[in-house]
Amino acid sequence: MRDGLTFELDEENGLSLQQQIREHLIRAIASGTLAPGSRAPSSRGLAQRIGVSRNTVILAYQQLVADGYLVGKERSGLFVCEDLAEVASRHLRLPDESEPRTAATWRALMKRRSRVDWSRRIPPDWSLYPYPFIEGCLDAELASITEWRDATRAALGAREFDSWAMNFSEGDDEKLVEQIRTKILPRRGVQADPDEILITEGWKQALDLVTQLFVDASSRVAIENPGLPELRELLRLHAADVVAQPLDAEGVIVDDNLDGRSVIFATPTRQAPTGAHMSRARRKALLRKAEAEDAVVVEIDFVMGGVGEKRSPALKASDVSERVVYISDLCEVFGPGLRLGFVVAPAPVIREMRKVRSLLAGPAPRAAQRIGALLMSLGHYDVAVNRVRKAIEERLTALRDALNYHLPHLVLIDAKLSGASIWVTGPPGLDVRYLASEAATRGLLIEPATRFYAREGEGSSAFRMGVSSLPLERIRPGVAALAQVMRELGDPSLDRLDPKRPTWLAGDDIEAIMRGATLLCRTVYGDPYSVEVRADGTLIGKAGYAHEDCDEGEWWVEDDRWCRRWKAWSYGETARYFTVVEGDQIKWYKDDLVLFNRGVLVTPRAEALAPSP
Amino acid sequence: MRDGLTFELDEENGLSLQQQIREHLIRAIASGTLAPGSRAPSSRGLAQRIGVSRNTVILAYQQLVADGYLVGKERSGLFVCEDLAEVASRHLRLPDESEPRTAATWRALMKRRSRVDWSRRIPPDWSLYPYPFIEGCLDAELASITEWRDATRAALGAREFDSWAMNFSEGDDEKLVEQIRTKILPRRGVQADPDEILITEGWKQALDLVTQLFVDASSRVAIENPGLPELRELLRLHAADVVAQPLDAEGVIVDDNLDGRSVIFATPTRQAPTGAHMSRARRKALLRKAEAEDAVVVEIDFVMGGVGEKRSPALKASDVSERVVYISDLCEVFGPGLRLGFVVAPAPVIREMRKVRSLLAGPAPRAAQRIGALLMSLGHYDVAVNRVRKAIEERLTALRDALNYHLPHLVLIDAKLSGASIWVTGPPGLDVRYLASEAATRGLLIEPATRFYAREGEGSSAFRMGVSSLPLERIRPGVAALAQVMRELGDPSLDRLDPKRPTWLAGDDIEAIMRGATLLCRTVYGDPYSVEVRADGTLIGKAGYAHEDCDEGEWWVEDDRWCRRWKAWSYGETARYFTVVEGDQIKWYKDDLVLFNRGVLVTPRAEALAPSP
Repeated sequence: MRDGLTFELDEENGLSLQQQIREHLIRAIASGTLAPGSRAPSSRGLAQRIGVSRNTVILAYQQLVADGYLVGKERSGLFVCEDLAEVASRHLRLPDESEPRTAATWRALMKRRSRVDWSRRIPPDWSLYPYPFIEGCLDAELASITEWRDATRAALGAREFDSWAMNFSEGDDEKLVEQIRTKILPRRGVQADPDEILITEGWKQALDLVTQLFVDASSRVAIENPGLPELRELLRLHAADVVAQPLDAEGVIVDDNLDGRSVIFATPTRQAPTGAHMSRARRKALLRKAEAEDAVVVEIDFVMGGVGEKRSPALKASDVSERVVYISDLCEVFGPGLRLGFVVAPAPVIREMRKVRSLLAGPAPRAAQRIGALLMSLGHYDVAVNRVRKAIEERLTALRDALNYHLPHLVLIDAKLSGASIWVTGPPGLDVRYLASEAATRGLLIEPATRFYAREGEGSSAFRMGVSSLPLERIRPGVAALAQVMRELGDPSLDRLDPKRPTWLAGDDIEAIMRGATLLCRTVYGDPYSVEVRADGTLIGKAGYAHEDCDEGEWWVEDDRWCRRWKAWSYGETARYFTVVEGDQIKWYKDDLVLFNRGVLVTPRAEALAPSP
Repeated sequence: MRDGLTFELDEENGLSLQQQIREHLIRAIASGTLAPGSRAPSSRGLAQRIGVSRNTVILAYQQLVADGYLVGKERSGLFVCEDLAEVASRHLRLPDESEPRTAATWRALMKRRSRVDWSRRIPPDWSLYPYPFIEGCLDAELASITEWRDATRAALGAREFDSWAMNFSEGDDEKLVEQIRTKILPRRGVQADPDEILITEGWKQALDLVTQLFVDASSRVAIENPGLPELRELLRLHAADVVAQPLDAEGVIVDDNLDGRSVIFATPTRQAPTGAHMSRARRKALLRKAEAEDAVVVEIDFVMGGVGEKRSPALKASDVSERVVYISDLCEVFGPGLRLGFVVAPAPVIREMRKVRSLLAGPAPRAAQRIGALLMSLGHYDVAVNRVRKAIEERLTALRDALNYHLPHLVLIDAKLSGASIWVTGPPGLDVRYLASEAATRGLLIEPATRFYAREGEGSSAFRMGVSSLPLERIRPGVAALAQVMRELGDPSLDRLDPKRPTWLAGDDIEAIMRGATLLCRTVYGDPYSVEVRADGTLIGKAGYAHEDCDEGEWWVEDDRWCRRWKAWSYGETARYFTVVEGDQIKWYKDDLVLFNRGVLVTPRAEALAPSP
């Protein structure tokens, strides 16, 4: 087209047609496709070209004029503003011959590095896997879009808006503090005044602030083993002396190893990661020990919405001698959209923590705080908690039954179910990291226990299976797939195609199946990558846990083989594979007909979501 | 009323009547006012009582039934669910005789405390002050509610919603990264790939992550003096060795003091806090020095939306030898609602920073990230930036002219205006902290320069006046008030009432003026507190920078004197004052007729905002 402007509207995009037109035109202006001072396409012409009513285009144009992107000139139409676009392409670099830094020289400058990348727990495309048994994620069934819409609409009322969007103070949203104080804490048996509560960006920021305040290189502290890997790594960054206390049936062991420890981190109500519950006697022993040692107990309480553990209030509820700093999180229900958590502690502690927070970040984004407050005050939070809890209870039962049916001699679990996952102990000698990596290539995600342990070699036969992340009906087939992998690990016979009985796909079938599909694979070092197989013959590859390594390529079919070539990946060389599809598994074989690689095949869903109203 | 349920609907509340009814009933259920199993008031009765249509109540009740708060029993009406309420009042405390901790014993346990509370810069009620000359806050005129509504609506489309609300990864919002990469960075002359950008919770979290990575107790670093107090305090928490480099006309001085410094923090484009611009020669010298010392330069770039400094790209734009880590912030326009910032650095640095971030907090709330991305992609961001910039330029000019008119011999400013504030140097010997404290009691907020300096005693005659926080027409009267305070400080004669010419208010006038007003005052130690004088004769007092100290009380009028009694404040004793009102000033005198206290009187605004549609 003459104006170089070409785009397609996406009916399944969340944006309205008018918004999409605006977005496309602004992008074209920013990129220079629509040059400054050039004439915008006529509304009639554009409407015809992209297949929408002229009125839609006119409304989009009106907004663009109001926003200053387009300028009307009498009788000659609309033109791209010269001023706005001018800024987009300026570059100024000083000439210099010096050597740029390399990754190695950068690393040499770093004082603190996280030894293990805990963010690698979950591949970014986890929700495309058929059987993602991951704790801490919610599947679409448990999302609360209507509730979000209602609370967000309320937050954008004129009076509400002013009270949060214009709050530049270091205080927290008073409505949210009040909801936590009157709704969530009473269910945990905890009484607190507003000045004893600090809102944080999830439990991790809460933990960061607490350790900033109470831990340094001279500190001697205690954690649970197994326990939270993020906490262990955080304490290592502080260079603290850490004792990792084992658990028994009553919870973390309270003994002489806690002597002289100034901070004791514990998860009494639902032990992270095993889900075990600390007995009443052990709680008393822990508080007595803290008093004897003049130690702070940092309680991390992962109890969704404060409900579901009727028999067991928080340890903080018994804290008459004020030795407990309480941390909890709202993400289990609100999800990453809000990422809110909070600390309950005596007012002098909260005061100091707020001061440190104002150095490190400031209050959580006001929009998230107020939407969170309204989700609670309008009752949506309780509804969501109850819905999620009910679903999780059903799923936990289904998982227990399936494990019992498919893996009776191979695994052990605790019959008493709590939390949103089951802690599974496999046969001795199991290499759970290898199991998890093999399982992932079949579309099955489980969490090896090793990362929860303080020492290398511990927990190598255990793993965790979460259920908040996949629907009920996927649980039994997922466990069946797990049983299959565990059996194969015992007998790893070679996967080879029989040339006399070709089971691989014919060219037309490859075309039909691959077009529009997404492939989920693993590198040999275990990193996930995904490949979008586009209908136009191109490939989009995304690797790493934050999609930090991307490439593009092409694919085609040749002699009943699937062929692809990346720009940079795989040395940019062409590869040709025989292809076998079994359910949602895809396997590739080279000319020797021996299994070369495998992955998960995700085909475009028929039930794709409708566009928003 | 029989059911103990009594509430008033607030037309100016941002919530709809139906939402308000729901909120009130849920609160009544949670607090036990509506007991579990008790009968809910009839819809007809409640509608009459609170003055809304019966249909509104019925709709609210239907939602409450759907949400499980109310349960219908055939032919006998609606009842409060037994299950939901049950959890609200459980308490379990172990009996114990041990000594609770005191604030002092808590403090003894703390390893790191922020020496100065930087959060105390802005009183929480700053926007009620008539003349808040504060940098970093936006007044209501500059808020962008329509833009927020549009972007938020778009974010809540079904497809959009799923892509952020269900993103549990450690990666950032790809849409937001793309907007920053293609819209903001080119204006600063910076080119970056997506894997060279990390989204943070504002510039402070960015600074925290950078210092976590590059600074520890063995580090020798450099900062600007005057500079960012938050940065200075952060480096003190890391126990780093810090040199505070002075500025000259070209920017921060580059000399031998920078030898051996591994990290150099600088604000080249708009020096914080003075607003000065670093010359091209000095930039080159700084980069050469960094190369010679193999140092990292951390550039903090406070340039709203990347526009407005046409002659000067970021230092990062000239960083051919890859020695600059670039930090910027989106809060200047988005405000605290989103609190977003970002880092640009080589990919290996971003990768390590992301790992550290996943320990300390995780990605910024997804809702904030996506709303931010849509504000940009829909063009609202550019519009807001241009609107804010235009207003600020007008205001800066007005402030310069007013300072020139009212304080010609007393102050000095830099004629070249940039940023959103003016750096004012007062006469030698001025005690700017006392000036600021006195000014605050007249409703005038300025920022003493002392907090920006590394050493006590520096900058004691300078202060900063920001203009993003008050409308154009307030600027001249604000400066006139400042001139008045400065003159009075030179001649502090006693303020005494003349018993022969009573200027104090009569009882009826006190009633009329005080009813519904808010009073803004200061304690003798400079902390702000506010008092709501309610029409029903009660007082609500909120003190501190996070409203951490609150009290209630009563007020009345007696013999032409305003009387009040707090529950806890002021020893709970009754006080009686003669009262004088001058404009928005209020002054209190005891029986001796000598000025006892003063404050700012904020009466309910006629132009209060309409409820949301």
